[in-house]
Amino acid sequence: MADLKKRIMTAVAEDLARIEEALVANLNPHFELVRETAGHLLFSGGKRLRPLLMVLGARLCGRDDDFVTRLSVIVEYLHAATLLHDDVVDGADLRRGQTVTNQVWDAPTAVLTGDFLLARALSLASESQDPAVIATIASITELMSQGEIQQLADRGNVALSEAQYMETIRCKTAVLIEGSCRVGAMLAGADAQQIEAVASYGTHVGLVFQMADDLLDYTADSQGLGKATGADLREGKLTLPVIRSLAVATGTRRERMLSILATDDFTPALLDEFAELLEGTGGLDYTREKARTLVERARASLAAFPDTPARKVMEDIADYAFAREI
Amino acid sequence: MADLKKRIMTAVAEDLARIEEALVANLNPHFELVRETAGHLLFSGGKRLRPLLMVLGARLCGRDDDFVTRLSVIVEYLHAATLLHDDVVDGADLRRGQTVTNQVWDAPTAVLTGDFLLARALSLASESQDPAVIATIASITELMSQGEIQQLADRGNVALSEAQYMETIRCKTAVLIEGSCRVGAMLAGADAQQIEAVASYGTHVGLVFQMADDLLDYTADSQGLGKATGADLREGKLTLPVIRSLAVATGTRRERMLSILATDDFTPALLDEFAELLEGTGGLDYTREKARTLVERARASLAAFPDTPARKVMEDIADYAFAREI
Repeated sequence: MADLKKRIMTAVAEDLARIEEALVANLNPHFELVRETAGHLLFSGGKRLRPLLMVLGARLCGRDDDFVTRLSVIVEYLHAATLLHDDVVDGADLRRGQTVTNQVWDAPTAVLTGDFLLARALSLASESQDPAVIATIASITELMSQGEIQQLADRGNVALSEAQYMETIRCKTAVLIEGSCRVGAMLAGADAQQIEAVASYGTHVGLVFQMADDLLDYTADSQGLGKATGADLREGKLTLPVIRSLAVATGTRRERMLSILATDDFTPALLDEFAELLEGTGGLDYTREKARTLVERARASLAAFPDTPARKVMEDIADYAFAREI
Repeated sequence: MADLKKRIMTAVAEDLARIEEALVANLNPHFELVRETAGHLLFSGGKRLRPLLMVLGARLCGRDDDFVTRLSVIVEYLHAATLLHDDVVDGADLRRGQTVTNQVWDAPTAVLTGDFLLARALSLASESQDPAVIATIASITELMSQGEIQQLADRGNVALSEAQYMETIRCKTAVLIEGSCRVGAMLAGADAQQIEAVASYGTHVGLVFQMADDLLDYTADSQGLGKATGADLREGKLTLPVIRSLAVATGTRRERMLSILATDDFTPALLDEFAELLEGTGGLDYTREKARTLVERARASLAAFPDTPARKVMEDIADYAFAREI
């Protein structure tokens, strides 16, 4: 996995540097407060996965210039806006090992800064003057907020189905990653078939990314990814490992899982016990297996493109989306 | 004033009914939760000032059809999204005599529903396929969030100048009302001069509207407009009546004002005393006079248009924006 990460980072180092420049350039003329708050989130070592995929999607389809990099900032802003608002919604303790925004800054600042980034993203999109790009960005934003609302409405619902989970993670995570890839291909003037292929890659990478995140919530320690283990459980979010385990567990194991889910005082010992139940009933393996299948579909979506460095690094990113969990 | 209101309501009754239909039609296919939360705000007897001004702006410039009414929903969504997020930010007690959203619904729901309405507004805008309309809506959204952030940053700043106040209320209130008028004129295919005239009307009506609101905060009782008297003071928002009074007050009066502003326990008696200081030092009258001047500018912006019923009701609305304060 260290090799995979190193290979990706080497291949995209120059792109990441350009994306970083574009982010700084675009944020600079604005309010000090915005820069400080959003800067905390925007410049705390995020992975820039979304803008990177827009740049790579465009390159895969034959376009490679500063205009694409400039527009790629849009999807990082949308991502940051979602993180800011999610932190208010979740009240989570840790994200990437840092204190969340609503604890450094208060909830009002997080809400308003998120709004500003959302608005700035849509302003930038409108600057593209391309109605199809604008419609895609607007539709991403709408679906993401629907996904977040659905997730909020589903909190604590132990009857949540796998299909409902897949639809929620599609909206809240995959739609933005898909859109990043799609807009990249659109900006390159790709034909409809190419655009759908790149978008399909994005959807599958997005789903895998979220499933790996949901696995990490039960398998990582807080020294690793930096997110407190069991945060989803604490927030009443049922993810695939839990949904699957509940579906197949029987007798006292199932009873015990339901009883832990009904608790609102999660001790580390209880979290460990729950994670063991997920492993024992196959919920974690089932999720890993499903994610692996989706990685293959992501790679397969790129099959018709020439074997370029852009395609190679996109394939590596699909692998990495899952591999970071192992 | 009762006559003025009655005359406006009679003139626009049919438009308001059509706007109401468009709002319901547009919200219907969406999540139950969104409909319930946003419905509480969207269908609680709001004035529909913004969509109405888009419809009237278009009619003034010669267009009058269902497409305009359909798009006018955009500005009501933007307005509702702002109210939802403001309620989280302010923690205000009353708005239009009803419990605020974040008390009926929790802050997470208010944040996410606001995001949904914002996204829906921009999706609808992108459906217009008109890059200039889309850019205007995106830019309104951006300026509004800047205004809100500025207001948050300025909380409790007793050195706030009149110019800073005017810029903040322009961003947080006038820009949306201006934009509603502007988009109406744009949809009608008006020429640049006509568009700027209608937009100028909107800016001035928007400023007056906010100044009247800020006056009402010190002059209305909670039986009237339904907003708790002194809410701005409680939230540390310095409005023009206070800024002006602080600028002209001297000696013990000024000392007393500053001492009240430094309190965080506002009794009704203290609020009454503060309102009397605003009246006594001329802050309220100064604001009233300034608002009256802006009403005249709003009316003057329409002077070049033919004397139609649309122009007449827009003039009445300019009067009403201020008169509701008296």
